[in-house]
Amino acid sequence: MLSKNRIKQINSLQIKKYRQESGTFVAEGTKVVLELLRSEMRIKEIFAVPEWILSYADRFKNTIITAVNAVEIRKLSAMTTACSVVAEVYIPKPASKPGIRKGELCLALDGVRDPGNLGTILRIANWYGISTVLASNDCTDMYNPKVVQAAMGSAFRVRVDYCDLPKMLSEASSMGIDVFGTFMDGESIYSTDLSNGGVIVMGNEGHGISSEVSAAISRRIAIPCGCDSASAPESLNVSSATAIVCNEFYRVLNQKK
Amino acid sequence: MLSKNRIKQINSLQIKKYRQESGTFVAEGTKVVLELLRSEMRIKEIFAVPEWILSYADRFKNTIITAVNAVEIRKLSAMTTACSVVAEVYIPKPASKPGIRKGELCLALDGVRDPGNLGTILRIANWYGISTVLASNDCTDMYNPKVVQAAMGSAFRVRVDYCDLPKMLSEASSMGIDVFGTFMDGESIYSTDLSNGGVIVMGNEGHGISSEVSAAISRRIAIPCGCDSASAPESLNVSSATAIVCNEFYRVLNQKK
Repeated sequence: MLSKNRIKQINSLQIKKYRQESGTFVAEGTKVVLELLRSEMRIKEIFAVPEWILSYADRFKNTIITAVNAVEIRKLSAMTTACSVVAEVYIPKPASKPGIRKGELCLALDGVRDPGNLGTILRIANWYGISTVLASNDCTDMYNPKVVQAAMGSAFRVRVDYCDLPKMLSEASSMGIDVFGTFMDGESIYSTDLSNGGVIVMGNEGHGISSEVSAAISRRIAIPCGCDSASAPESLNVSSATAIVCNEFYRVLNQKK
Repeated sequence: MLSKNRIKQINSLQIKKYRQESGTFVAEGTKVVLELLRSEMRIKEIFAVPEWILSYADRFKNTIITAVNAVEIRKLSAMTTACSVVAEVYIPKPASKPGIRKGELCLALDGVRDPGNLGTILRIANWYGISTVLASNDCTDMYNPKVVQAAMGSAFRVRVDYCDLPKMLSEASSMGIDVFGTFMDGESIYSTDLSNGGVIVMGNEGHGISSEVSAAISRRIAIPCGCDSASAPESLNVSSATAIVCNEFYRVLNQKK
């Protein structure tokens, strides 16, 4: 049987401060936990109901797997729907300093706060082969359980570097790297020259790109709207916009080859 | 003061059955409620705290606005964060039968269940000027409060027709309209001829497009992945995929003009 203290400690990992203290985070649900197998992540312990252990445990070599009952797993889980497995996973330590490399397509997030959006954006970055995402320090934490859930495994394959974003972007600019930012009044992505790649900056859900980050942007772009202004939405959701812009860069860079 | 019964009735609108009985749904938060002004929606009643009434009430002509206190608004609201306005709105009755018209770009959803996804998709449809979305009967209800929230006003401007989707798509096919479906093994959207428009079908979050709907699809398309298969995510989120495909159609149709 699980001790009350262990349950309490796992639950505490919902909060960033306790994740930093323990150096671990939580991944839940069969789909997400199985994605750990396709990653470099190190698992500290898996808690699962007996049926899950019967079906999947043999795939996890050298991993501590603890059988728990249905009541215990519900106490460990932060999900509202029933779940049969919860893993405690070590937060990896990045091997190198954050940075923007010339010739690579890079994504930078300025104040993205919604965990569902961040998770969805990691999945998009992963899809387009973008291995590093830069994030301003006020972006939501990538090991928030809702981010891990929405990323569906991509949080284990895409590195997020929290950094002083205006400084990092200025450095990129001075290296001759184009820094693209999405604005309502930017130039259409259909007519902008995207063929040299660069950094794509996406802004906060409500306020867009901050003035500090704006100052470091060299190319203001926009996603064309197909609707008359009287009945158009104010904007697209930030994850939808990220998907469209990343796809457009990928399409253009791919045609160039 | 609000009666307990009125609070209970507003809360009951979280559930589809009670929305159908009362013919109303709930919209919450300043941003979403102000969007009602840009729509044809008829408001039954607005509940708001005095500060909200001071700031915004004069924009709502001929609308019943009831002042409530902070405790009451919290009881009315389904949101986890503080909210200062809740509106009860009439569900509009469509003037015409659902249908697919030749020459129009149309979006069809097959079993999209997550309210956040449906709301985000309505916002995308609105952005690209798609005025009607067809939905299979097992899609989540568009007047679910989480859909209304995620759509940020687009739920008031885009019509969703719940229908027998396989039948509707077969009829479209027989009228010579292309029916595009997204599949992992489809033809790249970069090389497919999208210039005649048609119907774009997006599938369920976990299972994609159902076999019944698959049978009615004439063109299997795919979003190219920029990542090697060993480290690629299984798929994109359905709202990300919808954003990319709608943008690609719009781009091609727009260049044609």
